[in-house]
Amino acid sequence: MDNFIYDIPVRVYFGKGQVENLGEELKKYGNKVLLTYGGGSVKRNGLYDVVVSEIEAADMELFELSGVDPNPKIDSVRDGQKICRENGIGVVLAVGGGSVIDCAKMIAAAACVDFDPWDFLGKNVSIEKALPVVSVLTIAATGSEMDNCAVISNPETKDKIAVSSSHIVPKASFLDPIYTYTVSSYQTACGAADILSHVFEIYFALEKSIYMIDCFMEGLMKTVIKYAPIAIKEPDNYEARANLMWASSWAINGFIEYGKNVTWICHPLEHELSAMYDITHGLGLAILTPRWMKYCLDESTAARYYQFGINVLDIDKSLAPMAVAEKSIEILSDFLFNTLGLNSTLSELGIDDKNISIMAAKICSRRTLPMQSLKPLELEDIENIYKMCL
Amino acid sequence: MDNFIYDIPVRVYFGKGQVENLGEELKKYGNKVLLTYGGGSVKRNGLYDVVVSEIEAADMELFELSGVDPNPKIDSVRDGQKICRENGIGVVLAVGGGSVIDCAKMIAAAACVDFDPWDFLGKNVSIEKALPVVSVLTIAATGSEMDNCAVISNPETKDKIAVSSSHIVPKASFLDPIYTYTVSSYQTACGAADILSHVFEIYFALEKSIYMIDCFMEGLMKTVIKYAPIAIKEPDNYEARANLMWASSWAINGFIEYGKNVTWICHPLEHELSAMYDITHGLGLAILTPRWMKYCLDESTAARYYQFGINVLDIDKSLAPMAVAEKSIEILSDFLFNTLGLNSTLSELGIDDKNISIMAAKICSRRTLPMQSLKPLELEDIENIYKMCL
Repeated sequence: MDNFIYDIPVRVYFGKGQVENLGEELKKYGNKVLLTYGGGSVKRNGLYDVVVSEIEAADMELFELSGVDPNPKIDSVRDGQKICRENGIGVVLAVGGGSVIDCAKMIAAAACVDFDPWDFLGKNVSIEKALPVVSVLTIAATGSEMDNCAVISNPETKDKIAVSSSHIVPKASFLDPIYTYTVSSYQTACGAADILSHVFEIYFALEKSIYMIDCFMEGLMKTVIKYAPIAIKEPDNYEARANLMWASSWAINGFIEYGKNVTWICHPLEHELSAMYDITHGLGLAILTPRWMKYCLDESTAARYYQFGINVLDIDKSLAPMAVAEKSIEILSDFLFNTLGLNSTLSELGIDDKNISIMAAKICSRRTLPMQSLKPLELEDIENIYKMCL
Repeated sequence: MDNFIYDIPVRVYFGKGQVENLGEELKKYGNKVLLTYGGGSVKRNGLYDVVVSEIEAADMELFELSGVDPNPKIDSVRDGQKICRENGIGVVLAVGGGSVIDCAKMIAAAACVDFDPWDFLGKNVSIEKALPVVSVLTIAATGSEMDNCAVISNPETKDKIAVSSSHIVPKASFLDPIYTYTVSSYQTACGAADILSHVFEIYFALEKSIYMIDCFMEGLMKTVIKYAPIAIKEPDNYEARANLMWASSWAINGFIEYGKNVTWICHPLEHELSAMYDITHGLGLAILTPRWMKYCLDESTAARYYQFGINVLDIDKSLAPMAVAEKSIEILSDFLFNTLGLNSTLSELGIDDKNISIMAAKICSRRTLPMQSLKPLELEDIENIYKMCL
């Protein structure tokens, strides 16, 4: 168990109608707000109007940046940087999902520098300062609303890179489950796969966990497995949406990772996939995860799968560890591809093997090998995992 | 599920040797620190010397208040208030367990007013301001290191009153499990009972919980049940001490209570007991808890006990709910009184029935009746629960 410093200072307004506190929260950070959002969904579900009237009631000047894409692009960050620097913006408000929040975080950092913001990602320049970020969340998925991370894509270089800094953790996030009622079945499923993957990356890393945290992680996984199918069948089930939303934040706000030095595997593999093919992050993770688990399963790792199978999937504990492990992967695959209805192979998305070696090489170029989680992975192993997904 | 605002801004330095960051943390709050502690245990285990050398290395002026009692008394708060006001103290540092931290919190509030600090407790005067509080924890029990609460006794009036305020939440807490190696078997057991009780108060309240949080609570209970006996047998088992320590903070930092409007039962009953007889808080809770559970068990409440029995105590789920419920109480009693070795009745502590009606009346005088948790409790019910403990 490693030492750690727990520090999660985000203020989370959770529940129905909490957006009514948005104006008061924003006002703490001056009188000019940059509102960032994606396509039209926040206009269609009425959230945009609520947010704008909160900003008006707080007597703040409103600037807007819309059209932030899924897998947000560095050009949106550049646009936001320009607006902030030209207008002396005090706070960046993200209204949307993980893509919009990630973009807002990088705009907030870019606003404090005069160089091109891709340098934070492509050149590893560290973030020393950022404007305050506030978010209003509209999908349970990435956990960006409560974490220190942002992932930005650069279509020119086909790069998708994650950066983390305590300076970009949102000051406050507004989580009203009702604004996720309009999330489609497909996006709900992708979000669920993303949340599960955040927990898997930590839970399955073989380094000894804090038992208490293992129990918490099992609770998070049980929550997603219980409620994602309900939210898909009954999009306006408050209990289901609320549990998924709160689980999304706790899967990646740092709490479950404290005390364990973890190398993430599926996320870097997925980032290369969506950088190359612009697929949905959660879908890529869903396809990769069971293959990664299968590839890494052997006598030396089976005990961890056994714990997962018994405590999360309620498999008969009298079975042999290897049998439980294999059954766990089966049940998980069935959950992702049948219950949630996600595509199960890359081929179904029109992706073939031609860029596998490029993607694997990119991952390895930025990391120390072997990547050690369930078991040590070299370049060839990463290629093999990709191939299993075809 | 009620709305809530998540806001736990404590910075927690967790792990071996983390106290080496104490000086740097304290220095944020000026150059004068009031160090509060209890008896000699922090001197015997070397922690006092480490803390003092951190303060010296940070070039801060040190003031001291020692002799803070278990069930801390208002006179200690008054003494601390005087030192703070006469010397312009910038930060109050608690080195000890819940009693010392609670006392430091109230000193921090008292330092900002010129009236008698008992007014915060006896007259319900609200805390509007407090000096920053920092804690170095030496026992896993009350969770005061991460919560907004303090409990202070007044021997003259035989009152023991809890107060809560966001202003007294510690700015930072240092949790090094090694400093709990010297905690006796008895105090380890009492601490475990206290942590469990914090979870029980919330878990057993019948109002619908957030499922994800129920899972977390079950994890906390399993953690205490797994590790308290290990810590008693092997006082220097790092893993056991670390799990108990982190569980103590999470049982009461607010996280598991968000979204549920809970009336605590065993805590107010215990506060009256220890105000009257100065017994150890955790011991009082251990005696009260199974009786409260037994008293409230009927067909309408059994489902909650069933969930506890199945998910925490691993009782055969094919049994009838009432059978599981009864068995849960038995197993819990066996754990508290045999495995942990705590006294099981008030009589064993020399307490008879003569003050029961006084204590019950005191509880009711400060609350709206019925007190509603597992089931509605009136004055008579509270007297009955006390009588079951004799």
